[in-house]
Amino acid sequence: MQFVLVHGAWHDGHCWAEVAGALARAGHRVGAPTLAGHGQDARRDVSHADCSRGVVEYIVQAGLDEVVLVGHSFGGSVVQKVAEAIPARLRRLVFFNAFVLLDGQCVLDEHPPHYRAIIERLSRASGDGSFRLPFRVWRETFMNDADLATARRAWGRTSPEPIGPFRDRLRLPRFFGLDLPRSWLNARDDTALPPGPQWGWHPRLSSRLGPYRLVQMPGGHETLFTDPELLACKLIEAGRD
Amino acid sequence: MQFVLVHGAWHDGHCWAEVAGALARAGHRVGAPTLAGHGQDARRDVSHADCSRGVVEYIVQAGLDEVVLVGHSFGGSVVQKVAEAIPARLRRLVFFNAFVLLDGQCVLDEHPPHYRAIIERLSRASGDGSFRLPFRVWRETFMNDADLATARRAWGRTSPEPIGPFRDRLRLPRFFGLDLPRSWLNARDDTALPPGPQWGWHPRLSSRLGPYRLVQMPGGHETLFTDPELLACKLIEAGRD
Amino acid sequence: MQFVLVHGAWHDGHCWAEVAGALARAGHRVGAPTLAGHGQDARRDVSHADCSRGVVEYIVQAGLDEVVLVGHSFGGSVVQKVAEAIPARLRRLVFFNAFVLLDGQCVLDEHPPHYRAIIERLSRASGDGSFRLPFRVWRETFMNDADLATARRAWGRTSPEPIGPFRDRLRLPRFFGLDLPRSWLNARDDTALPPGPQWGWHPRLSSRLGPYRLVQMPGGHETLFTDPELLACKLIEAGRD
Repeated sequence: MQFVLVHGAWHDGHCWAEVAGALARAGHRVGAPTLAGHGQDARRDVSHADCSRGVVEYIVQAGLDEVVLVGHSFGGSVVQKVAEAIPARLRRLVFFNAFVLLDGQCVLDEHPPHYRAIIERLSRASGDGSFRLPFRVWRETFMNDADLATARRAWGRTSPEPIGPFRDRLRLPRFFGLDLPRSWLNARDDTALPPGPQWGWHPRLSSRLGPYRLVQMPGGHETLFTDPELLACKLIEAGRD
Repeated sequence: MQFVLVHGAWHDGHCWAEVAGALARAGHRVGAPTLAGHGQDARRDVSHADCSRGVVEYIVQAGLDEVVLVGHSFGGSVVQKVAEAIPARLRRLVFFNAFVLLDGQCVLDEHPPHYRAIIERLSRASGDGSFRLPFRVWRETFMNDADLATARRAWGRTSPEPIGPFRDRLRLPRFFGLDLPRSWLNARDDTALPPGPQWGWHPRLSSRLGPYRLVQMPGGHETLFTDPELLACKLIEAGRD
Repeated sequence: MQFVLVHGAWHDGHCWAEVAGALARAGHRVGAPTLAGHGQDARRDVSHADCSRGVVEYIVQAGLDEVVLVGHSFGGSVVQKVAEAIPARLRRLVFFNAFVLLDGQCVLDEHPPHYRAIIERLSRASGDGSFRLPFRVWRETFMNDADLATARRAWGRTSPEPIGPFRDRLRLPRFFGLDLPRSWLNARDDTALPPGPQWGWHPRLSSRLGPYRLVQMPGGHETLFTDPELLACKLIEAGRD
């Protein structure tokens, strides 16, 4: 399969290194672009449209077809816009504990009020509008399945997140009518969003996809660091026919 | 133990072949009758009462006692009626991601509106009122844990489902007062009903049983094909003492 | 780590014997006091304050610091009061399918009405106000993951529960403002409280903790008997930095 992996907040394309290696060893092709305003990209004043445009250009310029397009976390909202732009190049969408926004929503809308308040406060304090969760919060709620050394190592691979793509409201006139197969990969111990019917990932956001293929695995929000081999296996199950 | 396994929609008694083999090797006796109007039965104009009457006759004519009566999916509604008819022959009821109807409901009532619409449309188009889900829908939502070859092989063992037993409203004056031990076996990746508080199998339908024994396993709706050995183990856990 | 394990209803400190052994073999120190009015304690006319005072005294008299304080089931409500009393001695709170009461609640408030009725009836009938669940109910809903011999053996280690600590309303003016790390250890097959949004353990009670570290494991309410080795591993994951 041809995978294109879209990373989440605070990450860049390199976060997939171990997962991509495992997928390649299993015979698959993998692309993992860095979204605009992320990682080494010096700009932090980017928009959500900059993010999705970059992925579209990546796929088109590489001439990729039959793409299994994977979005993790924030990356789910990017997958939605990419799917609207170039559906004919895609074979299946995989949402891996990822945002599925309704038409007119922004990513911040899907965060509990006290998370929104923290994010806005951190963004104002940073100088360039970007924000980064305190290590302690991230360690507890994103890396709950890791030991401290793994959590610290993963933290060292993150960078500040631009606020624009979290605030931009998305127009999604076509997404929910697309005839593209959809999978939801659920990490069952993920508490990056508070578990439960009000804010939890699954089945709250997954159910917005209409009929979807469910694949589940143990682990928290960052299994790309804590169990990349298993994650690669589950992405194959989520992406296969 | 003496198991009697009641299959779900689109199936017949042969669907349990691998599970029954594993149970027999573990020292248990297994019956797996085909419901009226299912499988090789030429009639498709059957009622829900025809289905439950057939299971009652199967148990009585074979002189079975201390039966662990297992219902899968649609088969749960049959187990309810059989339990009302011959409670003294039963030792325990096991609902395996199965319908637990309230007094006066029909099986269609427990399907989301868009599923009901699809089922009614397919039934009208079939000539004899029966219906079969499109392979793609079934593969995605019933066989999400299978590779394509396994999904195709399982699909080849299904047959059209009569509509009558889905539409018939059940009178259940005694079921909820029966003093029979009850288990719920939950396949955690089952999306045959959309997961979530509104339509999901568990804990929505299981909670109707009052106090019950919960046993859980990985897998989708059709673990009788995807993992019959594990399913047999879990049925033993659900049915013991 | 220095663990202090607070048992639940019908138990005493000896219920942790196998778990404590596994923790000790992994290099940790473990205390497991028996709550007032439990086990061999002849009194059954105790209050919730007697229970929490005993744990405070246990920790203070032993001079323990940096305690990972674990509460199981009823023990969660005791952990809340101990945390208010001696927060500086604690490193982290671990709620293991445990009650997290709101200010002014009693433990009975978090039981479904039909459970409350059974408990009050059993308490009135016992002579000294204590109560014990019938074996059949306990075997089905607490020991659902056990065979009958294990369930009987565990049952043999229980004793009548005093009613006072279930009825006493707790003042919790400080608990929800404490800056102590909190974990929730969830046994996924636990049906001691009926699963679901209305009465279930997780995420209903866990979400009251605010941001918390989630650790999950298979098993019912009594994994301290059915899988003490795994439980010890998970307590370490829940308690570590």
